[in-house]
Amino acid sequence: MQSPICAMLDIEFPLLAFSHCRDVVVAVSKAGGMGVFGAAALPPERLEEELAWIDAHIGGKPYGVDLIVPNSFAGKGETGGATRPEIPATHRDFAAGLLARFDIDAVGTDDATAARQALGDNMTDEGAAALLEVAFRHPIKLIANALGVPPSLMLDLGKRHDVPVAALVGTRDHALAQVRAGVDILVVAGGEAGGHCGEVATMVLVPEVAEAVGAVGASTPILAAGGIVTGRQMAAAMAMGAHGAWCGSVWLTTAEAETNPVVKEKMLAASSRDTIRSKSRTGKPSRQLRSPWTDAWEAEDAPKPLPMPLQSLVSEPALRKVDKLAEGGHEGAKQLATYWVGQGVGLMNEPMSAGQVVQAFKEDWIAACERLNGFVGG
Amino acid sequence: MQSPICAMLDIEFPLLAFSHCRDVVVAVSKAGGMGVFGAAALPPERLEEELAWIDAHIGGKPYGVDLIVPNSFAGKGETGGATRPEIPATHRDFAAGLLARFDIDAVGTDDATAARQALGDNMTDEGAAALLEVAFRHPIKLIANALGVPPSLMLDLGKRHDVPVAALVGTRDHALAQVRAGVDILVVAGGEAGGHCGEVATMVLVPEVAEAVGAVGASTPILAAGGIVTGRQMAAAMAMGAHGAWCGSVWLTTAEAETNPVVKEKMLAASSRDTIRSKSRTGKPSRQLRSPWTDAWEAEDAPKPLPMPLQSLVSEPALRKVDKLAEGGHEGAKQLATYWVGQGVGLMNEPMSAGQVVQAFKEDWIAACERLNGFVGG
Repeated sequence: MQSPICAMLDIEFPLLAFSHCRDVVVAVSKAGGMGVFGAAALPPERLEEELAWIDAHIGGKPYGVDLIVPNSFAGKGETGGATRPEIPATHRDFAAGLLARFDIDAVGTDDATAARQALGDNMTDEGAAALLEVAFRHPIKLIANALGVPPSLMLDLGKRHDVPVAALVGTRDHALAQVRAGVDILVVAGGEAGGHCGEVATMVLVPEVAEAVGAVGASTPILAAGGIVTGRQMAAAMAMGAHGAWCGSVWLTTAEAETNPVVKEKMLAASSRDTIRSKSRTGKPSRQLRSPWTDAWEAEDAPKPLPMPLQSLVSEPALRKVDKLAEGGHEGAKQLATYWVGQGVGLMNEPMSAGQVVQAFKEDWIAACERLNGFVGG
Repeated sequence: MQSPICAMLDIEFPLLAFSHCRDVVVAVSKAGGMGVFGAAALPPERLEEELAWIDAHIGGKPYGVDLIVPNSFAGKGETGGATRPEIPATHRDFAAGLLARFDIDAVGTDDATAARQALGDNMTDEGAAALLEVAFRHPIKLIANALGVPPSLMLDLGKRHDVPVAALVGTRDHALAQVRAGVDILVVAGGEAGGHCGEVATMVLVPEVAEAVGAVGASTPILAAGGIVTGRQMAAAMAMGAHGAWCGSVWLTTAEAETNPVVKEKMLAASSRDTIRSKSRTGKPSRQLRSPWTDAWEAEDAPKPLPMPLQSLVSEPALRKVDKLAEGGHEGAKQLATYWVGQGVGLMNEPMSAGQVVQAFKEDWIAACERLNGFVGG
């Protein structure tokens, strides 16, 4: 396809797949798109293992790595959990009470040390540097930052290794800040996206950013994100000024994905109304599948979510326990189980392999282009 | 253009313009689209005047009329203001206090009789019937209902006069209910729309509804709405399964529009982040330009909005006074002034005539189609 994204990344079809699952990354790159491995929550030695596995299986196809290095969060820059603010009892008790209402005891969910280390340390400058060092030891073709302007270390390493740097943005002004900082690719994510997202919808944000980037004389290519789970939506975004698409949610229900099977079933059955944008999981607004867990945190009597990354230290250990119990058939846990997903979940109704998804995108893209041409055809 | 919408409405370009301003209706129809006159807040005798004026100026081009007949609201079916629930003092006092902080006295804003009659009566079955009777005395080519399934009287009159009936929907299930009820055109409006709107974004809702309509064997054509203020967005929606677009916000900054000049300036300067979806104006979620007025009602100490149509009896008289004072240069009123508008306001940066907007849509539509073809061209 004639897109600057294809030229820049040496891929056939400008569809990027964000996934925490190495099998999805490999399958998408092999099918002509590009897998981007979400490494945010991994310690460096686990990232090394995962990337080595990808190198061994991807047959030389290009792939990328995605990190989360926010500009600001509680405890940023400090290392070692001891000096960070503690979790208030109100939040721990609320989570425990919620679990109890669904017949789950809170044992193991109030010791947040493991979650704190994995989440907290990677989001410090030192933690991020360790992950970057691992990533650049491998033949990656893209490095992405999911939150805010990438740290200068990421930009410098990208330049030194000739690896394009991508950054997610949810507003026009953030996009312009990224362009000034020197990122190579903008991932423009609307509020319908799963995970962390802004409020402006993809239908508005993509043309708004495309226009603003052009107005400052830049030509930074744009990947549209947010709600996109089909080729017709990808074509729509590209008609509005994007040069390709960045998708996360659509891979969650693929055969390769390690998504909790209970959550997979919920996603296949969900409509576009079954997600909620809430601070209750990470402390920043992120879109996720609605469940009694998210409903409880949205209720008026719920404690206000803690700032990032503290809220994750409340939610992650609890939801990991919920996931395990749900897989084992625990009824209460099956109800509570949730995961990040965008409004596009309403269009994810069939289980497919990741390679089939890429193929379906290509065919649907062409069909959408033909549909559009049909309106002016004779 | 080869669209079922063009065939059904006998127009050249499937762009529908919802406007409370008769000049916009006439200009859009004359430019090859179709103006739809928003009659919701008018008494029958005023609607008669407006439609007579349109008939005299539109040169035989087709136009439509839009009403709001909700399925349920406080006091529905009752006539005469006296028997309806009264406005609580908390709400009246909060509005008065807010006005006072901006140096506006509340005199004239606490007597809601006029607003009550105009708003409340039209939303009763009898009020709606009176407006419908006026509308069908004129050569309208479309009748639309902005909220919920149209009453059977509207569907019957449409059939009898061979006038297509359109209905706005914000979810897949509402769309299917409308198809079952027998509407002729679905206006599928995403959460980025100005005025009353749901939560699902246009990028997801349009393909989701198109798929669902097809799955039940229907072929009801779809107008995409929500955030669309340019031809490239219209083309995008049509690539995803829509057959045209329904736009409201984009006309508000045109030369013909009777929008408060202060609000017009705010809209031209606004980015897509400067709107808020709030219950504070009508009692149901509607998207509007952010101002200290909307901020105050969103604050934690604000009284909870009253059910429709009672909240309007608090907000409308106050905001009409604000509008008048703002036009006269009152500083506090200029700050408070607001109006319904969608996130597309971020792309509305240039004052144009309504005819120029239609022309710009056509050119931008073609450019978007060419851009898309360029990705597969040699």
